[in-house]
Amino acid sequence: MTTIRVLTEAHLRAAVGLGRDELAAVAAVFPLVSAGRASMPPIMRIDVPEHRGEIDIKSAYLPGYAGIAVKLSAGFFDNPARGLPSLGGLMIVLDTETGVPVAALFDNGYLTDVRTALAGAVASDHLARPDATVAAVLGAGVQARLQLEALRLVRPLERAVVWARRGEEARRFADEVGAALALPIAVAASPAEAAAEADIVVTTTPATEPLLDASMVHPGLHVTAVGSDAEHKQELAADLVAAADLFVCDRVAQSLRLGELRAAVAAGFDERRAVELGDVIAGRAAGRPSPEAVTVCDLTGTGAQDTAIAALAVERCAARGTGTTIDA
Amino acid sequence: MTTIRVLTEAHLRAAVGLGRDELAAVAAVFPLVSAGRASMPPIMRIDVPEHRGEIDIKSAYLPGYAGIAVKLSAGFFDNPARGLPSLGGLMIVLDTETGVPVAALFDNGYLTDVRTALAGAVASDHLARPDATVAAVLGAGVQARLQLEALRLVRPLERAVVWARRGEEARRFADEVGAALALPIAVAASPAEAAAEADIVVTTTPATEPLLDASMVHPGLHVTAVGSDAEHKQELAADLVAAADLFVCDRVAQSLRLGELRAAVAAGFDERRAVELGDVIAGRAAGRPSPEAVTVCDLTGTGAQDTAIAALAVERCAARGTGTTIDA
Repeated sequence: MTTIRVLTEAHLRAAVGLGRDELAAVAAVFPLVSAGRASMPPIMRIDVPEHRGEIDIKSAYLPGYAGIAVKLSAGFFDNPARGLPSLGGLMIVLDTETGVPVAALFDNGYLTDVRTALAGAVASDHLARPDATVAAVLGAGVQARLQLEALRLVRPLERAVVWARRGEEARRFADEVGAALALPIAVAASPAEAAAEADIVVTTTPATEPLLDASMVHPGLHVTAVGSDAEHKQELAADLVAAADLFVCDRVAQSLRLGELRAAVAAGFDERRAVELGDVIAGRAAGRPSPEAVTVCDLTGTGAQDTAIAALAVERCAARGTGTTIDA
Repeated sequence: MTTIRVLTEAHLRAAVGLGRDELAAVAAVFPLVSAGRASMPPIMRIDVPEHRGEIDIKSAYLPGYAGIAVKLSAGFFDNPARGLPSLGGLMIVLDTETGVPVAALFDNGYLTDVRTALAGAVASDHLARPDATVAAVLGAGVQARLQLEALRLVRPLERAVVWARRGEEARRFADEVGAALALPIAVAASPAEAAAEADIVVTTTPATEPLLDASMVHPGLHVTAVGSDAEHKQELAADLVAAADLFVCDRVAQSLRLGELRAAVAAGFDERRAVELGDVIAGRAAGRPSPEAVTVCDLTGTGAQDTAIAALAVERCAARGTGTTIDA
């Protein structure tokens, strides 16, 4: 008999968000991954072609963590026609010492949104110019907003720029998010225009053709790409990856398969030039080489990041007695 | 907002067991798998070396099924010293059309035990002699008992034989299970002696060295191996696989990696001789060639079997209003 804590999105929104402790929790796992200390198998994927759906499963064991998260992410692209969001998901946490289930987190993808935004902030913290004050986001969805919000944990943003494929979405984003975050947000007419204005660009789209190329970046710019997480996606042109003074990613093997390294290496980029963010954080690899350098970071998302945010959420909810407990 | 049904082992034991409907549900998925109609990625495995643990994740999408099960199986081999079972697990069921979570089944591995036993019965139903009445089990654990119980759904057993590495376990099994099932069960001194007595042998051990070889089988015998599910396990000697008139398995790719085909092919067995059970069930491949033939079936266990039993469990529990419902 064991007791399992069942948590809903509402419980989890109340427990964790874009705070400094969450940022530190997510940052802490990058060095473990890059040092090979995580046990993190490749992503498992179940295709559901009849419903334009896919389920991705990520997990990681991290030494020293009390729990192991297993995350199921669902993307079902006929859902909007039913009035449901395309993306969802949940996490299960197992006890690291016994494998016994500890908690079920029915977060509908909220924790993924949070850890992805925090990972973006970690990347900019280590790679963007220290004096960066202007951020651009490509894409005008939830993740674009969270990226701006998380960036403020690491840089004192003075203003932002947004570009989206549909101009009206970008305008709505500028109005709503600008008001909510008390941040002036301008609308750019193109990715190039957005990048020209910014010290930091974060790409948050499901693009399958590059949005940014080498001609659109300027000295001192840092670019973080969080959109690509599948073989057919790409946000950055191969020439931008090649032109960058430093190319960083969360996990080389995964970026080669699902991220921006895929197209770049196909175009001739030497993958040995790719550095893992965890090695930069740990001081095992150099970060930004100069104020004028162009740096690029590709984040495909790792099970280690899920384990980090889930561990924190479960710890807080357990301490507060949040959720429904089930004896099983 | 969605409603998720949370079910415990007690709920699930009350809902599904070794019945004819369950047998039919498990049998139905083999032809789908063998026809390539299931979307079933390779098993995902997370190693937890510090605690002698591993987590295996299986899943399958089956066209026409309302749910997709994702199963987490945990094996943590320091648990007995803590008074906990080594093996555990749970399943999550997602809606096939939307990917939305439908149910969490905290079954502690019960559903795996049931579907494994039923899969064994399906194999014997299609491969053992129609007049088989004597079954032998190697191993004296829960699965050995369930295999005998499930076999009775497909053959009128008159008696059984048990062998286990530890003789006292075999004697306890013969007494307890014999009484519970009202079935005479004799204890054999060796795997060879057990096989000599039987029409059907089911091997249910975590053996890493073969228990049965070609010298131990006799004309008309059917052998089902359910123990091996990892690269280091093996119950059947390569010469037995080679000597069999028919070698069947649930999934060739998986048996090659984790099951009895691994060692057999390494010893020269031509994997093209392996037939999938689903093809036998569907009539696409021949079953037992003659009453005197020796047949072997290796079951490594598939996510499709998990989806089948989970679907039935959730359907029944929903119809009866069993479990705790959570709005998430």
